[in-house]
Formats: sequence, structure tokens, C-alpha cells
Amino acid sequence: MGRPTVLLLLLAILTPGAAFHVPPAMKALSSLRWSASSTFRRTVAKNYSVHYIQQKVDHFGFSADKTFKQRYLIADAYWKKNGGSVLFYTGNEGDITWFCNNTGFMWDVADQLKAMLVFAEHRYYGESLPFGNKSFRDSRHLNFLTSEQALADFAVLIKHLKKTIPGAKNQPVIAIGGSYGGMLAAWFRMKYPHIVVGALAASAPIWHFGNLVPCGVFMETVTKDFKRGGPNCSETIRSSWDAINRFSRTGAGLRWLSEALDLCTALTNAQDVQRLKAWLSETWINLAMVDYPYECDFLQPLPAWPIKVVCQYLKNPSVSDAQLLQNIFQALNVYYNYSGQASCLNISETTTSNLGTQGWSYQACTEMIMPFCTNGIDDMFEPHAWNLREFSDDCFKQWSVRPRPAWIITMYGGKNISSHTNIIFSNGELDPWSGGGVTKDITDTLVAITIPDGAHHLDLRARNAFDPTTVLLARSLEVKHMKQWIRNFYASLRKKH
Amino acid sequence: MGRPTVLLLLLAILTPGAAFHVPPAMKALSSLRWSASSTFRRTVAKNYSVHYIQQKVDHFGFSADKTFKQRYLIADAYWKKNGGSVLFYTGNEGDITWFCNNTGFMWDVADQLKAMLVFAEHRYYGESLPFGNKSFRDSRHLNFLTSEQALADFAVLIKHLKKTIPGAKNQPVIAIGGSYGGMLAAWFRMKYPHIVVGALAASAPIWHFGNLVPCGVFMETVTKDFKRGGPNCSETIRSSWDAINRFSRTGAGLRWLSEALDLCTALTNAQDVQRLKAWLSETWINLAMVDYPYECDFLQPLPAWPIKVVCQYLKNPSVSDAQLLQNIFQALNVYYNYSGQASCLNISETTTSNLGTQGWSYQACTEMIMPFCTNGIDDMFEPHAWNLREFSDDCFKQWSVRPRPAWIITMYGGKNISSHTNIIFSNGELDPWSGGGVTKDITDTLVAITIPDGAHHLDLRARNAFDPTTVLLARSLEVKHMKQWIRNFYASLRKKH
Repeated sequence: MGRPTVLLLLLAILTPGAAFHVPPAMKALSSLRWSASSTFRRTVAKNYSVHYIQQKVDHFGFSADKTFKQRYLIADAYWKKNGGSVLFYTGNEGDITWFCNNTGFMWDVADQLKAMLVFAEHRYYGESLPFGNKSFRDSRHLNFLTSEQALADFAVLIKHLKKTIPGAKNQPVIAIGGSYGGMLAAWFRMKYPHIVVGALAASAPIWHFGNLVPCGVFMETVTKDFKRGGPNCSETIRSSWDAINRFSRTGAGLRWLSEALDLCTALTNAQDVQRLKAWLSETWINLAMVDYPYECDFLQPLPAWPIKVVCQYLKNPSVSDAQLLQNIFQALNVYYNYSGQASCLNISETTTSNLGTQGWSYQACTEMIMPFCTNGIDDMFEPHAWNLREFSDDCFKQWSVRPRPAWIITMYGGKNISSHTNIIFSNGELDPWSGGGVTKDITDTLVAITIPDGAHHLDLRARNAFDPTTVLLARSLEVKHMKQWIRNFYASLRKKH
Repeated sequence: MGRPTVLLLLLAILTPGAAFHVPPAMKALSSLRWSASSTFRRTVAKNYSVHYIQQKVDHFGFSADKTFKQRYLIADAYWKKNGGSVLFYTGNEGDITWFCNNTGFMWDVADQLKAMLVFAEHRYYGESLPFGNKSFRDSRHLNFLTSEQALADFAVLIKHLKKTIPGAKNQPVIAIGGSYGGMLAAWFRMKYPHIVVGALAASAPIWHFGNLVPCGVFMETVTKDFKRGGPNCSETIRSSWDAINRFSRTGAGLRWLSEALDLCTALTNAQDVQRLKAWLSETWINLAMVDYPYECDFLQPLPAWPIKVVCQYLKNPSVSDAQLLQNIFQALNVYYNYSGQASCLNISETTTSNLGTQGWSYQACTEMIMPFCTNGIDDMFEPHAWNLREFSDDCFKQWSVRPRPAWIITMYGGKNISSHTNIIFSNGELDPWSGGGVTKDITDTLVAITIPDGAHHLDLRARNAFDPTTVLLARSLEVKHMKQWIRNFYASLRKKH
């Protein structure tokens, strides 16, 4: 198997959509639709104020004393100075307004927790660029894009809020985040327990590092979701790879493929075919992450239970190659053209500045080294082993940096985290990331909540009439824990005075 | 009061001797005596092996992937692979062999804890220089001298030891340190509880930052020690400053002073006089820190209870200026010439490379911002207010960096550390640093041990026939806690398997 395949597949997997960010291949389409989407319009209606704080570009070094503007949002309609709390969203790899508007849970519980909502943007994403449009220029400018610097930003910001907002000083702060933001929430509580009384880490794959979990677990869950989506669905997808390979042997086959899949740019060589397969894999992964029980627009406008809808087109793995790929096209259309406005499907990786994409690609090449693999047996993908050396070389080519795969475990403890307290790890069982998450209680105060019918951090989304009971239960448990943390905080405050 | 005074006094206070390091002014004399001292000879007899590990120069950034050799020492004569433990000395600002030989406590308890002793050198000290002899060249080279980088070195080293030393993997590691090293031990347990099961933080002034304690507390304790040293002793020292000032008005006075104090270099101007007073202040401070109950050679060869000896010469504050300063000279001789070999007293700050001095001076200008002040009433010194702006300007002049006085509290929690566990804070009540230390229990597992007759981390020194009962009691309590941590570790290990 050639190098480009591996590179593309790895990038595809390492940058799966959902909260991790919009994959590059989807960028062209999704950006067109974005501003017109109903979610986005709901967004603007949410009532928050936008603020900026000057942060040190480097919290851990003093030779450069440069600062940058970090953006954060505040919504305080329900906040009570008396007995209230602060819910602090630990922003992840994207524009914070997007997360703000896709974390309805915080808005839904603000009233009962008398909470101020704060959404902090992660450095190098959205508007919070340490070196403006030069931020992604080279590894020297990217040097301050690490989880440690991001956590330090959060700590400094909270101290600033407590100092400057009258009434906030003696209030408990709870960290909340999903996906990478969930990892940050958990790690924030671990490293700065003096600043947050607890953390809700939703769909946070904090164990998807090193050998903590098997590298195949992610793609196996994706496959399970498609098995569950309909009879023969995963088998049909598994069959599609060879069908594509057979078509790719001739120029005529490539032309047919390009037309059958309605690609914006025709496939012309083997590399294009690898790119196509990586893009397809990404699509199935993203569908698994956003397999929500109601129509919504998170990464793309999608119907309720989109995998079920997709699988209606993928019932037969034994038809001719041509028929099978035409069925795949129908399935793709569910994801890429639910609104009916796409004129073609674009698999090209754009190199335009989707900042989120660039930032996460760098992070995935430095600290966030999550091993992924497939064997084609326990999953529906073509087999790919995890090859750190190759991965490292690709990272060096792209960013002039080398990954440090052991570092995150050294820094944040891997599976040895039982001395910490007050962290909720929630995971949807449909979510491919759940395999790298904490799905069993560690102690009385490091608790796992699993949501059998949940995809990627469903619990953080706004309440919905079609929410399954299991997510309602999860949310109520989460609120129960948060209320306990808040009570404990005020009890110990009273003891002090 | 002119700028130079403040600068010198601040530097003097910020770089007090003892475990913090040998103050610049003493360098010339002490380096002469060092190799001949009996402590040093005992040192060499201690049986350890010297090792090196390649560490990333920057754990928190990926653009430079440079490494350097960190030195560490291992003594495993008493180590048991079965049921043993690892005592890990979190090296502070100096050559690690010096700390290794001045931390007899670890050697004394190795047998009963079946412990391997590891002494890790702090980056930028001793042989562990990230950029060799260029390490102190400028702020760019010094950029990686922070407590966070040092803790990361320790974490990486321990993971390395567990991986490479057969039998070490499933053993509990306890962090032990004194002074700044004690702060590191405590912070290490706070930030890396997955790596060390507990910490003994001896004489660690973790609260000597910001407004956590009054800035005068340090010098008040020094003064108390001299009050306790003999009648009129602190009053005599208080009178000496004006006596010096009066002598300094004329050239003849300066000449007399230079001769009376047997200075190696004659005083010629006001700046020299400020330097003299700073040097005197340092001397009294150092005496307070090393006011040990037996003859020893830590910073200097000294008699038992050196302040008592010094105070024999400082009984009368009301004699003539000349007599008073001649008495001061006698007192100084106790500290600088106990061995009788010094031909003159040298107050000049050398600019030769005492690496420890340079490194700490930089740290004291960046992260380790400890406010000090005197008022001349509650203490025996000339009044000096704490002036952050002036301090910052001086730091910028010297190192091209500015202090970030709030950072350490943001990072390590200030007084809000009750969610951590398994840290012993020990403090000698004679030790000026005790004012910035934790001297009352915070929780059942964050315990304070105070030693009424102890100076700077007396408990970490080797057992001695003249040890007061209070330090024996402290050490046995410390061992009791450590044994408990070790038992808990093995109990939870058994539960896992």
C-alpha cells in the first residue's frame, strides 16, 4: 500500500468531523450552506456578549512577552450573584460561537443552576489567533498551540473574570466541554482543581493515546453503528472498496466513477482514488458521530437517525460493482445533499485557510497522537496498520514537527487518574470516540455516564422532543452531580467564614 | 533611597543562601573552602552512581526538538525489588551532588523503606545545562528555565526509570525536596499525582507569593532568631546600619570601615556602602537559615547554634560606632572565617559563572516573585518597601524579562490547595522561610509538621547526636506518613490484580 493512502487515511481519521472539526473535504460544500442553515440562525438569536482578554502567547516562557486577544462569550441572563455558579465551556478546535450555539445543554440548565455561561475560545481557532494571519505560517508560529497553553489561558481567564465581575469572585466554576473540549475540561479539573470545582467531560476520548485502548476500537464502533443501521449495510460498505479498486484500473473506469459519484473534479490517477476512499471513510465516520435521533444541522443538515436513512440505500453487498457504487452515491447524497442544493460532490482537500482544520492537523501531529487502525474484519474498512514512523515522517513533511506520542500520558496520567475528583465522563455508545473514553466509574467522584442511544456528545445538545430517555437520564445525572459540587463549594465557603 | 540599594537588597533577599544557593558575595570565600570541608569529604564517600537522560529542552513546544542531558544520581544499596519504594529528590537550584550529600535523611531512611534513592538535577544547574556554556547567554537561551519544565523533566525521568530498571515499574515513588526543591516536591504531587504517591516538602515557602503572606514575615523571623540568640543582639545589628551610614560620610570613614571589617576591596563610594549593607543583610539571613544545633558545613563551616556564637559579640548596641562595627566584624568572622583561613572578607559580587546564582537570579525575575519588605521596627533591618515596578525594571535590565507575579498562584493554586492529597509540609520555626510555608494542617492528608528548634529543612539533614527531640519527632512522623502512602499504593495494586 503506497504512502499517500496511509497519509490521507490517517489525516481523515485524525480529523474526523463533529466537534473535532469540519473535515477539509467537506469544507467547500459546508461553507456554502453554513450561513443559510437554521442552526446558524438559531445561533444568532442566542443572547451573549462578546469579550476579549489579553493572554500571554507563551505562559511557560518569559523571553517573548507578546500577548494576543482571546475571545470569549458571556451569557448571564439567568446568573444570580447570590448562590449562583459559572459554567465554563473549555473551547476546542473551532470558532467558539459555533460551539456556543451547539451546546444547548448549558443554556437549558442555566436557570436551575443560576449560572453565568462563559464560552472561551481555544487559541489558534476562530478569532483567537496568537499571530493573526501568520499563526499557521510555520512551526515557529504554531509553537504555542498546545493543550497546556490552552488550559493556562482558561485559568488566567477565570481569574480575570473573578477579579473583574462583581459577584463572581466567590462562586464555583464548573468546566464543561465535548470531544477534545471534553478532554480539556477533564484535564483542566485535574491540573487546576483550585480553579474549577468539577468538570463535565462529554465524549472525551482521554484514553485514545498510546496503548491505553486497542487502536481498532474507533472504526469497530463506526462499523457497529452501520450494522445497527440496517441489514447488510456495513457489508455493503465493506464491498465498496474493492468495487472502487476494480473500477480504478482503467481510465474509463475512473471516468465512470467520477460521473456516478457526481464528483466536482474527475478522478485521474491512483492518488485521486486514495483520496476518494479517505473521503468516503470520513463520511461514514462523521455519520457515526452525528447519528442523532432528530433532524439537525451540526456538521451538515441531516435527517433524524441519518445512518438508518443512509442504510436504506446500502442493503445489498452482492450486486454488480456499478450498481453498488450507484447505491453508495445515493447514500452520500443523504449526508452531502440533504438540502438538495449541492451541484456536485467535492473530495478535494482545500488548502485555503480553514483555521480549525490547520490547527487540529498540527495538534494531531504533536501532542494529540491517537493511534487508529483497521483490519477489514472487525470493521468495514480497508486494512490499515498504525505506523508511527510513517506518521511521524508525514508530520515532519507537513509541519516540520515530530509527534511525541508518550507525552499526553505523562502529562495527564493515562489510566492512572484515580486521585482526582469531581469529573463526569459521559459517552454515547454509538459514538466512535466512546472506545477511547472513560465508560466505567473510577471512584465515587470520577463517574462514567453512558448513553446507549447517544452519538457524539448528544448530552451537550439542546433538549429536543425526540431525545431518547437515556440522554434525559444522563443529563439529569449530570445536573445532580453539578448541584452537589456547587453545594459542597458553598458549604466549604461557609466553613471558612 | 537610591535605586542601587533596592536592587542589591532585593537580590540579596531573593537569593538567600542555604538551599536557595550560595549568595554571590560569598562565592569567592566559600569556593576556596569547599573542597577542603569535611562535609564534602563525607559526600564523596556516599555510594551512588551517576546517570544521564536525554530530555526535551522544551516539553511544552514542538518547534525545536532539541534535547539536553539531565544528570541524576542513583543509590540502591538498600533497595528491594519486592515491596520496595523509590525516594525521588526533586533537585533545586544547584549542583545535585551537593544536595545529594546534604540530604542525609533520605540515606538514613532508605533501609526501613527498602528504598532506591534518586537525586534528579534541576535543569540549568550543575551539569544539566540545556545549552552548555551558552545556557545563560540571554533570555532566549534561558527561556526554558521554569518550574513547569523542571517538573516535566522529573515526570519523564521517573517514567524512564520505571521502564528501564527491572523491578521499579510497580513501585511507589515519593517526591522529597527542601526549600525551592520542597516547593517542587509539593507541586510535583499536585500536578503529577499519577507519578508520585506523595511528597515531603521541607521548608517549602509555597505561599511566599503575591499577597498570600505579609511581605515582612521573612525578615521578622530572622530578627526573632537574633533576639533569641542573645540579649541585645538584634538591637545591636539594628544600630549598625546608622553607624555604617555615619562612617560612610567621609573618605576617612570609608577607609576606616574597610580596614575594620578587613574587606578585600576598600569601599570608595555610596554604591559600595549599599553593597556592604546588602552583604551584611545576607549574612544575617544565612545565619538564620543555617542555625543548626551542631557544628556543620552547609554554606560555610560553622559552629553549633552559630547565631548564639555570633551574638556573643553583639551584646551592646550603645557603644561607640567604631566599637560597634568592630564587634560586627567579630560576628562576621564566625560566619566567614570559622576555619581561620580567610585572609580578608570579600563583598564584591563576582560576575564569574556561578551557575546556581545566575539561574536563580533569572527564576527570581520571572516566576519566583517573592515579595520581601522591612520596616526597621518589627525587624532589625533598614526599611525597604516592596516595589514591584522597580523590581521589574531591574529584572528587565538584567535579563530582558519581566516578572509575572500572579502566575505561580494561578498555576499552583496559592492557598486553595485542599483538593490535593499526600503532602507533608515541614517547617522549622527558626527558619525565615517558615513564614511563607504551610504550618497548619489543611486536611488529613495535607499535613503540616513544625519543628520548634529547626532552621532551614533541618529534618532533611542526616541524623546527628545533637538533634533536638523535635526534629526526631518530625522525622518519625514523616516516615510514618510515607509508610502509609507505600502501604496504600501496594493495597490498591493488589486490588487491581
